[in-house]
Amino acid sequence: MKIAVLGTGSGARAHIARLAGLGHEVHVGTRAPRATLARNEPDMMGTPPFGTWLAGHPGIELHTFADAAARGELVINGIDGRNAVAALSGAARQLEGKTLVDYAVPYVYDPDIEHPWPTPWGVMPTFDPCDSDSLAEQIQRALPATKVVKAFVTQEQETVVDPEAVGGGDHTMFVAGDHADAKRAATGLLTSYGWTDVLDLGPLVAARGMEMYAHLHSAIGFALGFGTRFGIKVVR
Amino acid sequence: MKIAVLGTGSGARAHIARLAGLGHEVHVGTRAPRATLARNEPDMMGTPPFGTWLAGHPGIELHTFADAAARGELVINGIDGRNAVAALSGAARQLEGKTLVDYAVPYVYDPDIEHPWPTPWGVMPTFDPCDSDSLAEQIQRALPATKVVKAFVTQEQETVVDPEAVGGGDHTMFVAGDHADAKRAATGLLTSYGWTDVLDLGPLVAARGMEMYAHLHSAIGFALGFGTRFGIKVVR
Repeated sequence: MKIAVLGTGSGARAHIARLAGLGHEVHVGTRAPRATLARNEPDMMGTPPFGTWLAGHPGIELHTFADAAARGELVINGIDGRNAVAALSGAARQLEGKTLVDYAVPYVYDPDIEHPWPTPWGVMPTFDPCDSDSLAEQIQRALPATKVVKAFVTQEQETVVDPEAVGGGDHTMFVAGDHADAKRAATGLLTSYGWTDVLDLGPLVAARGMEMYAHLHSAIGFALGFGTRFGIKVVR
Repeated sequence: MKIAVLGTGSGARAHIARLAGLGHEVHVGTRAPRATLARNEPDMMGTPPFGTWLAGHPGIELHTFADAAARGELVINGIDGRNAVAALSGAARQLEGKTLVDYAVPYVYDPDIEHPWPTPWGVMPTFDPCDSDSLAEQIQRALPATKVVKAFVTQEQETVVDPEAVGGGDHTMFVAGDHADAKRAATGLLTSYGWTDVLDLGPLVAARGMEMYAHLHSAIGFALGFGTRFGIKVVR
């Protein structure tokens, strides 16, 4: 299948590598491909430059957001939450009629707000939008001809693409959206990643809770020790 | 042990009955005991009047919030989120030096905002405070001499007091707070309820994520079918 991954961060890279390994034709989108490839320093999180990473993953094509979206039959949004609506709006025509799986968290990092307890972040992020709206709903409103599915967001992307790495895969992934066929496509992708428990939470409004779970997810991660991989299982 | 439970709703009743069953001396607090006992109609959620319930639970004493708090060595806050800070502030002296376990969700039910999809609620609640603050932190600021622990909030109280009812008890409960001895007391109580996996999320600021999880909890509940009991297990 032709799949577009928009974004070049560590989460996007997890999907790109896994999708290529599964035999898909992967098209990666970035704002300005030349600038992305020209970068030769790790980012502030220590992630190596994308060009370096790409050199070790032959057969992956890098395009603009719009060109990658045009080539994908299914599209994964890995653009950071602050920029997602604007960047995706610029590819609205190329995304028409397609399933867009969004895993972005609408974090606002205010460097002036120190974290109330020591964490690897040093700052206390908040969300915008939050509670009465969600990023996924904003994207759906901005792209009414696209079928937005919120998924992946309750987990590190490295574990989304490799659920067996935690508890032998015995944990739960969620999907939400207003288009049943798009949720089936996202669930099919998750099944191919190895997920056995994918819970459909209903319409896209459920994305609010999925995005807002990020605070609890972070707190659990800090409690277990930074870098510890974990998952959430809905026991019933 | 002498334990005060503030509140007379269905969640409070779960704790009251279980604590009494465990042999504790339980003191229940309400705003106006006579008015509480005079009520003889079920509330809007269909919960029977407290007086009817109390008649079936001999040995339980009903007091004002302050009088119940004065009698408890440990206090559980089951006052609804909108009224918790004001009501607890009125019992600040009686709560001095004590552990207060808070499980309230700061829901704002606006009857003018219809729920975007059919749920048993009919309205779409939001939280106040949310994201940059939490109800637990507000309570701690209002009662600086009290040791506030956020706990129980990620689960129905009927399951908090009976974890074995879901998956044989193989799921996770969280505590957060700024006082280690108070978190030990809350964890001890949870252990007596039957919990085997109680995860300390750190300082009280982690209550933000615990309270905001309520949206995801509701969405999971609606997806599984209203009334289905479930728990969240941190798989690691």
